[in-house]
Amino acid sequence: MQIAMIQDRIVPVEQLEPIYLDRGMYFGDGVYEVVRSYNGKIFALEEHLARLADSLAATGITGVNIDRIRSRIQKAFSAAGISNAKIYFHITRGSAPRNHVWDDGLEPNFFLTVTELPDDTEAKTEGIAVSTHPDWRWKRCDIKSLNLLPNVLARTDAAKKGCEEAILVNEAGLITEGAASAFFAVFAQTLQTTHLTTNILPSITRKFAIKAAKNIGLEVIEKSLTPQQALGADELFIAVTTKDIVPVVRFDAKTIGDGKPGRYTMLLVEEFRSFT
Amino acid sequence: MQIAMIQDRIVPVEQLEPIYLDRGMYFGDGVYEVVRSYNGKIFALEEHLARLADSLAATGITGVNIDRIRSRIQKAFSAAGISNAKIYFHITRGSAPRNHVWDDGLEPNFFLTVTELPDDTEAKTEGIAVSTHPDWRWKRCDIKSLNLLPNVLARTDAAKKGCEEAILVNEAGLITEGAASAFFAVFAQTLQTTHLTTNILPSITRKFAIKAAKNIGLEVIEKSLTPQQALGADELFIAVTTKDIVPVVRFDAKTIGDGKPGRYTMLLVEEFRSFT
Repeated sequence: MQIAMIQDRIVPVEQLEPIYLDRGMYFGDGVYEVVRSYNGKIFALEEHLARLADSLAATGITGVNIDRIRSRIQKAFSAAGISNAKIYFHITRGSAPRNHVWDDGLEPNFFLTVTELPDDTEAKTEGIAVSTHPDWRWKRCDIKSLNLLPNVLARTDAAKKGCEEAILVNEAGLITEGAASAFFAVFAQTLQTTHLTTNILPSITRKFAIKAAKNIGLEVIEKSLTPQQALGADELFIAVTTKDIVPVVRFDAKTIGDGKPGRYTMLLVEEFRSFT
Repeated sequence: MQIAMIQDRIVPVEQLEPIYLDRGMYFGDGVYEVVRSYNGKIFALEEHLARLADSLAATGITGVNIDRIRSRIQKAFSAAGISNAKIYFHITRGSAPRNHVWDDGLEPNFFLTVTELPDDTEAKTEGIAVSTHPDWRWKRCDIKSLNLLPNVLARTDAAKKGCEEAILVNEAGLITEGAASAFFAVFAQTLQTTHLTTNILPSITRKFAIKAAKNIGLEVIEKSLTPQQALGADELFIAVTTKDIVPVVRFDAKTIGDGKPGRYTMLLVEEFRSFT
């Protein structure tokens, strides 16, 4: 007999719910997206679906119909009836007895939640504190995968220091991005952020932040910076789907500028609003 | 209303089984072990439990009683009644609405399977083929975590090339280890394998392989080697809990030695048997 055990309970393998054999659990073998709505309308859904398709292709997860995913998201969003919602969903390669090497023809698993987005006015008007952490993540952070333990450890470390986000620093001493956000610095009339490589996520909010920066007349430089350079910036902010642009006023316990959200950052917050 | 969706089915969040909110699924926020039995006796259980405790400590997963885990393993192994069994188990941080930062006091989730180990005589007598793959894993591979997507991708790439295992090569061009095994080379009377760092797993089978090597009079050098150096070895083998020592006779499609399992490797297979 082949058996399984859940906490203290023995279960024959044949009676296990498929989710217990989900490759998402065994290996983090799945990809995810987070989208949000503003006032009843989902923002940048097509961009998120395009990135999802890239993540699926990069991991070789097949059998996913993007049109069906779009329908599911819309159906769930409608059913929830939440005007400002966070929609999280993941797709895993499927359920099967544990084996690194996957069998073709697995049926992918889909899971989604719709939850109300808390008001982030305070973060926007007061700014947040961030702290640095070594970037322990894998080498394909361009894939939005379920392998997020390094992000969990970094963000929890930041939280213990009273910070809202961890800013990840690679072995070369350069900032890659936030553990769950893109990271930006303003120097005079220039906006600087890491260039896109396989080591960072092609963030959709990053793309809109860059667009907003150009709209308000900032020059944009895509080049990594060091924590020391970040400390010398006029302004810092992070960009993330669920909160769009959030000013950073403390970096590793040191005050940025005058400790208040920067002028350009606030202009960007406003410019971003015109997209939504 | 906050809702969830499983495939096409909408479910109120309150009605979700806790496993759908398992941090193991959301983040790979958990650790695991694989132990095996030989002829009705679990091998090196205490070593595996000690490593489990290290993984739990490194990830900050609390509330796990190792004595209770040992009892569960023994109870499940007994119930299965399989003489040569593979016992897989993982412990995740617990179930909660998705948030990178964890709340203290979560109840860890435990899941285990006992399955029959297939006979590996052919691999032992014929040897296996391996192929190299970039080591895309995170920087804390000393933690046996559920973040295994890079291992999945590497091993599936190897399988597509007709190989049994992927040998991972870091950015410095050095072999770290196999995607699910330790890797060894024999040069004359010397056994060489990567030294233990945070970039490789402190493999228990590696430890016993080194012990076996010393028992049969080999000198042991713990130092990384390049694929080019591996190709020039007299013998190669991998070590993994489920198969102990397995000769490698092809490396990136090139034959090692005379294409048959090496003399020392076979002596190590035999010496290993004396431990079990």
